[in-house]
Amino acid sequence: MTYAFTHRHLLGIEGLNPLDLRYLLERAESYVALNRQTEKKIGTLRGRTIINLFFENSTRTRTSFELAGKRLGADVINMSVASSSVKKGETLIDTAMTLNAMHADVLVVRHAESGAPHLLARKLNCAVINAGDGTHEHPTQALLDALTIRRRKGRLEGLVVAICGDIAHSRVARSNILLLNGLGAEVRVVAPPTLLPAEIDRLNVRVFHSMREGLKDADIVMMLRLQTERMQGALIPSVREYFHFFGLDREKLALAKPDAAVMHPGPMNRGVEIDSDLADDIDRSLINEQVEMGVAVRMACLEVLSEKLPAVQGAQ
Amino acid sequence: MTYAFTHRHLLGIEGLNPLDLRYLLERAESYVALNRQTEKKIGTLRGRTIINLFFENSTRTRTSFELAGKRLGADVINMSVASSSVKKGETLIDTAMTLNAMHADVLVVRHAESGAPHLLARKLNCAVINAGDGTHEHPTQALLDALTIRRRKGRLEGLVVAICGDIAHSRVARSNILLLNGLGAEVRVVAPPTLLPAEIDRLNVRVFHSMREGLKDADIVMMLRLQTERMQGALIPSVREYFHFFGLDREKLALAKPDAAVMHPGPMNRGVEIDSDLADDIDRSLINEQVEMGVAVRMACLEVLSEKLPAVQGAQ
Amino acid sequence: MTYAFTHRHLLGIEGLNPLDLRYLLERAESYVALNRQTEKKIGTLRGRTIINLFFENSTRTRTSFELAGKRLGADVINMSVASSSVKKGETLIDTAMTLNAMHADVLVVRHAESGAPHLLARKLNCAVINAGDGTHEHPTQALLDALTIRRRKGRLEGLVVAICGDIAHSRVARSNILLLNGLGAEVRVVAPPTLLPAEIDRLNVRVFHSMREGLKDADIVMMLRLQTERMQGALIPSVREYFHFFGLDREKLALAKPDAAVMHPGPMNRGVEIDSDLADDIDRSLINEQVEMGVAVRMACLEVLSEKLPAVQGAQ
Repeated sequence: MTYAFTHRHLLGIEGLNPLDLRYLLERAESYVALNRQTEKKIGTLRGRTIINLFFENSTRTRTSFELAGKRLGADVINMSVASSSVKKGETLIDTAMTLNAMHADVLVVRHAESGAPHLLARKLNCAVINAGDGTHEHPTQALLDALTIRRRKGRLEGLVVAICGDIAHSRVARSNILLLNGLGAEVRVVAPPTLLPAEIDRLNVRVFHSMREGLKDADIVMMLRLQTERMQGALIPSVREYFHFFGLDREKLALAKPDAAVMHPGPMNRGVEIDSDLADDIDRSLINEQVEMGVAVRMACLEVLSEKLPAVQGAQ
Repeated sequence: MTYAFTHRHLLGIEGLNPLDLRYLLERAESYVALNRQTEKKIGTLRGRTIINLFFENSTRTRTSFELAGKRLGADVINMSVASSSVKKGETLIDTAMTLNAMHADVLVVRHAESGAPHLLARKLNCAVINAGDGTHEHPTQALLDALTIRRRKGRLEGLVVAICGDIAHSRVARSNILLLNGLGAEVRVVAPPTLLPAEIDRLNVRVFHSMREGLKDADIVMMLRLQTERMQGALIPSVREYFHFFGLDREKLALAKPDAAVMHPGPMNRGVEIDSDLADDIDRSLINEQVEMGVAVRMACLEVLSEKLPAVQGAQ
Repeated sequence: MTYAFTHRHLLGIEGLNPLDLRYLLERAESYVALNRQTEKKIGTLRGRTIINLFFENSTRTRTSFELAGKRLGADVINMSVASSSVKKGETLIDTAMTLNAMHADVLVVRHAESGAPHLLARKLNCAVINAGDGTHEHPTQALLDALTIRRRKGRLEGLVVAICGDIAHSRVARSNILLLNGLGAEVRVVAPPTLLPAEIDRLNVRVFHSMREGLKDADIVMMLRLQTERMQGALIPSVREYFHFFGLDREKLALAKPDAAVMHPGPMNRGVEIDSDLADDIDRSLINEQVEMGVAVRMACLEVLSEKLPAVQGAQ
C-alpha cells in the first residue's frame, strides 16, 4: 500500500498519525542539503501565493516561513496585525476570506486565540498552516524539534525527552508531547505546579517537579521560554529563584545521560531558563540546528499542502 | 482607428474616456483566468520595480497591488508610513523623488490628502497610481467594481446602481459615480443629508434619502463603509439607528430587482452597513468576487502603465 | 599582480585600502547602466538570501539594499526592530545567530550602537554589511558619495571636499572622511565647535568654523542632516540661526568654485541645512544622483561579498 498524506491543512500534531509524521520528516530531510548550498532555490511552488498572516509578532517563525516559501519559488506576502485592517473592525474571518478571494494557496496563521486557524480552515479554499495559536499547538515547531532530535540520535523511538519549564503557556510543549508520543519517545515534563496546565493529566507524560528527578537518564533536555508576558503580576516567578530551581546549567545537565543534548525553541532568556555558556556549547546544544531544521520542515509542509490543493474554480 | 491608451498615470477615473475604461476592463478580464490557475505567474514585468507607498494603512489594497505586481514578475517593495522617513521630517515629494531616483517604474500611492498623487505625478519620471487619496478618488476600486458588475450582469449600460451610505467620506463612491456614468449606468446615491458631500449637486446622480425609494428597481446595491474615524464626535450616527435606516438587510433588498446583487468595498462593519448573513449569501453578494477582480484590475493597470514609460535617461 | 578583494565583511571604510575602494567603485559603475534599463534584473545572486536587519528605521537605506538584492536575483527578507523578537528580550547576537542558522548569505545591519555589526561579524558565518552603526560608520554611503563625485568630476584625487554641519552625530561624515582621504581628496569639515566630535583632531581634515572660509575654492559642498533627535534640549540650535550661519544657500555656494556641486545624504531638512530651491537645482545639486548611485554601490557590495563566502557546512 502506498502512503498518501490526505490532510488539506496543518492545524496541529493532533490528528496526524505516525505515518503522516514520518512522511513530513522525510520530506523535510530532503531540503536540509538544499539549504546548505550556495544556490538555495528551486521552482517547485513557482506561481503559488503564500500569505503569512501574523496576529502576534514572531521574528523567527515568520522569517522561517518566508524563507521556506521563497526558496520554493513561491510569492510570499507578509501581513502583520499592526498594518492590517483588524484595526478598522474587520473580523478575523473577513480578513482571511479576502486573502482567499485573492487566490492565496497557503495561509500561514499565528493568532493569540487557540482555535483561530481551525475556524479559518473551515471557511477557506486555501490550505491553512497553524504557526502557533494561543496555548494550543505549534505543529511545525514540534516537527522541527523531532527532525533535530532524529538527526542527532538517529531515532525517536525509546528516547527519553524531558520538557522543562513553563509548560502551562506553551503550545510548543503541547505539540511536542503529542508528536513524541506518536513516534514512540517517552516524554517527561518538569515544572513547578504553577507552570503546569490543568489538562496535564490527560496527556501521556510523566510529571516531575524537580530537575534532579526529571532529568535523570534523559536523552534530550528541552527547555521552554518563560512566557512572563502571559502571566499576571503575583504569579511571575523571580528570575533568580527560577534559574536556581528550573534553569538548566551544567550541573543539572550532568544528571541526564552523558550524551544528552539540549534544546530550546527560542527566543531564549539567557540566565533564566538556561545558562548562557551552555546554550552556546555546540557539543551539547542543538539550538542553532533547531532553527536550521525549521526552514526545511516548513518547506516540506508548504510543499505537501500545495500538492493537496484542489483545482480552483473562482473565488467563493 | 486603433485604440491607444495615452495616459502616463492613473490618478482618477476623471479624465478617462469610455474607451480608456473599456480598455482597462478588457485587459483585466484577461487576468481573471490566470489568477485561478495553480501557477499564477507570468514574466511580463520582470525586472520592473513597483513601490507601494502607503501613508494610510490598508491590508486589502496593499496586498492586492503586491500580489498583482508579483504575479506579473515585477519586484515589489512595500513602504508604509510607520517605517518611512516621513517621521524624520522629510516631505512627501522628497520621499517620492528618492524612489524615483532608484528607478522605480510604478509608484502606487495611498495618502490621506486629496491630490497627493497628482502632486507626485507632476514631479516624477515613473508612473503613479492613486490607491486612494483623501476623499477624492480610488480609481482601481471603481474599475474592479465595474468589472465585477459587468461579469455578473453582462453589461453596465442601462443598469441602475444604488450607492448607499457614507457618501461624504467616500473616494470609492466618487470614483464609482464617475466610472458608472461614463459607461452609461444610472447612478443613485442613498444617504442621510449629513452623509452627502457638498459637491453632490455637481455629480450626475439622483439623490435619495431613504432606502425604500432609492433601492426601487435597482440592479446593484453598493453599500459603503461607515467611516466613523473621519467623523467628529457628535456627528457619528448611532449604530443601531444607522442600521435601521440605512443598513442593508433582506427586507430592504426586496425593494430592488429580484436579481439585484449586493456589493461592499470592504472592510465591512457587519450589522452596521450590512446584515451579516446577507453579506455571506453567495447568491446575492458579490463581495468576494470584488476582491478577486481587484487583483486582475491592478495587474492590468500596472501592465498598461508600464508600457507607457519612456526610456529612462538617468535619475533627474 | 591581480587584485583580490579579501574582506569577508563590509564593516567600515576603515581597513579598506585604496585598491579595495577603487575596486568597489568600478564594480558599482558597471551597475549604473543596468539600473537605467527597462529590465533591471540579473540572476547573479539567485538562490542567495539577504536579510535587512534594521534596528533603526530608514526608508532610503533599507529600500536601496532591498532593491539592490532583488535586482541581483536574491531573496531579500526585511526585519525591522518593531516586529522583531528584540522586544521579547532576545539579544542582538541571538537574533543574528538565528538568521545565520537559516543560512542567510549576507546580513545588512543598521543599529544605534557603534560597533554592533563588528560584534556580529565575529560570530556569524555569513557576510555582514554595516548599514550604519551609531555615530561610527556608514560605508556604503561613503562609497555612493565617492561614485557620485567621481562621475561628476572625473576623479577624486586633488578635489577639495567641504563636509558641513552636524559632524558630531554623523557616521556619514566619518566614513566619507576616511574614504576621501584614502583616495587622495582634501577634506575640510565646516561646523560650529558644538557639532564637532571629540576625535576630530585625529582625523586628517582641516577644521573651519565658518562657511565663508571653509567653502572657499571647494569642488564639492557636502551638507549633513542636522540630527536633532540625537541632541539634548538646550544644545539643539535654533533653526533660523543655524540656517543663517551653516545652511547652504546660493550666496554661500558662490564662495566655492564656480562649478562646485552640492550633496546631501538625505533626508533633507529643507530650509535648515539647505535652501530648498538650491536642493532642487539639477545643475548644482547631485542629491538625486546620490540616491541613484546608492543602489549601484549596494549591488556591487552584495555581489562582491557573496563571492567571498565559504562553502557552508551546516548551521552553527
